[in-house]
Amino acid sequence: MTSPLPAEFALIARHFASLAGPGALGLGDDAAVFAPPPGRELVVAADAMVAGVHFLPDDPADLVGRKLLRVNLSDLAAMGAVPLHYLMTVSAPRATPDAWFAGFAAGLAADQREFGLTLLGGDTTTTPGPLTLSLTILGHVAPGTALRRNGARDGDLIFVTGTIGDGALGLLAARGELPDADGFLAGRYRLPQPRLALGARLHSIAHAAMDVSDGLVQDLSHLCRAAGLAAVIEAGRVPLSPPARAADRRELCLTGGDDYELLLAVPPERAAALAAASAATFIPVTRIGAFHAGPPAVTVRAPDGTPIPLARGGWSHF
Amino acid sequence: MTSPLPAEFALIARHFASLAGPGALGLGDDAAVFAPPPGRELVVAADAMVAGVHFLPDDPADLVGRKLLRVNLSDLAAMGAVPLHYLMTVSAPRATPDAWFAGFAAGLAADQREFGLTLLGGDTTTTPGPLTLSLTILGHVAPGTALRRNGARDGDLIFVTGTIGDGALGLLAARGELPDADGFLAGRYRLPQPRLALGARLHSIAHAAMDVSDGLVQDLSHLCRAAGLAAVIEAGRVPLSPPARAADRRELCLTGGDDYELLLAVPPERAAALAAASAATFIPVTRIGAFHAGPPAVTVRAPDGTPIPLARGGWSHF
Repeated sequence: MTSPLPAEFALIARHFASLAGPGALGLGDDAAVFAPPPGRELVVAADAMVAGVHFLPDDPADLVGRKLLRVNLSDLAAMGAVPLHYLMTVSAPRATPDAWFAGFAAGLAADQREFGLTLLGGDTTTTPGPLTLSLTILGHVAPGTALRRNGARDGDLIFVTGTIGDGALGLLAARGELPDADGFLAGRYRLPQPRLALGARLHSIAHAAMDVSDGLVQDLSHLCRAAGLAAVIEAGRVPLSPPARAADRRELCLTGGDDYELLLAVPPERAAALAAASAATFIPVTRIGAFHAGPPAVTVRAPDGTPIPLARGGWSHF
Repeated sequence: MTSPLPAEFALIARHFASLAGPGALGLGDDAAVFAPPPGRELVVAADAMVAGVHFLPDDPADLVGRKLLRVNLSDLAAMGAVPLHYLMTVSAPRATPDAWFAGFAAGLAADQREFGLTLLGGDTTTTPGPLTLSLTILGHVAPGTALRRNGARDGDLIFVTGTIGDGALGLLAARGELPDADGFLAGRYRLPQPRLALGARLHSIAHAAMDVSDGLVQDLSHLCRAAGLAAVIEAGRVPLSPPARAADRRELCLTGGDDYELLLAVPPERAAALAAASAATFIPVTRIGAFHAGPPAVTVRAPDGTPIPLARGGWSHF
């Protein structure tokens, strides 16, 4: 029999083939083949996003694509790695309009250009459930230079990039539950800013690093557990954007997810080097506290020094 | 505040941490770090599986894990690659019992040992929809030796490994729609046999290779399009298992999916080398037809030489 190109392959050719790099073999083979950069270690991570859980079903398709790529790029930033390639699986309801795929691919194309990486392969399937996306990212670092979560030391200062809490507030704004006249907060929720340029300069500066995705307090508790140290945050120092200050939801800012900022442990004598890296990359950093000897736990202190009790630590599935 | 380990991380620690290899950093960091094998090319592929689409919701959890790994291993086999690592995302309904995760991880552990690879990282999320799994596999080959789909030449013989059609019949059997007294067919559907040992010996034997996942006729049409050649299959030569012969559903065997056997284009003068590789690996191969000059299309011929019309070419999402 003659065999016309099945609809699934036509969809891939129409929307995803132009995203493919040289090793992807036009997305038409069983797998992709590429030569890793000689003398480098590979850094790999994978994140899934489910409509209604990680993004709103009516979020613009291009921003969904860009967020999918950026949450993974943020993981590379936290390791100090340079982006290289990605693979992606898309499980979509059968009724997903072609225009959605076109917008999704356009968003990916824009961010591929911005961050310098290409699509290597993946899979497209139907699902009777919500749109479910999974992306695996590949980057590289010089051997032995990947930033880790486990290196914080007693006396290290705690820094964060950018502003904290906009992601959680932005989700409320995107749902219409919080005023957001100029769309700043919703934009911060829908389009994270992976801090790759700064991450790549932190190897000789930070003792530990991670990206804040599940809430500042919970993510800081991971650094505490990994190092066997206590951490104290001064609530008044946590950097908030003007709309976040106006919203006056400080606990949500400290515990809500989707910030995708970097959280760093930096010894005091390297604070100047961090400031220089910040200035060189135009990525602001703010000191918010310090690590101390003690059982792994995070304390948040008010400006008068009293601990602030928090109802929940951060976001957890299950 | 003190921060107990959130449930999501406890679940990962309980079930997935023991699957992690050295570069996975205990699944506790933002990403994994590994040194690619020096002087080798990397081969990467990703496949998604959705409950109710790619497996039955009540399939045993260990077999779901093994199938997820094996459909990806089959892609490596088709490229002649050696398995190395994998990353995985699991989007599970909140009510998924802990025992399901335990069984799923046990299946992965068994196949990691059998095929020699380790978990590098991933993500675990909830979903309001069906259980949705995505796996990215990494393997390696000597530079320039990856098998491709596009190399078939006029006069090449067409071979397949194992038997064809058991996967599609096995889905019917697993649903109770086909007798399967000893469970052979359902077993073939639930537990593919990736042909890695043979694939790794085919570089100097096969002009083209792919794995049969969407149906023999449709997948062969991909080799035809990639090479600009016609293909003729002799229906009487297509190898069927005894239960498949007994089921007498020949068209379904030719067009149904889930075989995960290798489909090869081999020049006649290398047929003996292929037989030797088959004997060395205990993986049977059968010649089922040949490629010819002509427009890309697949013809299936009855033993008397007349073309057999087929109602559908193979499985396509969308």
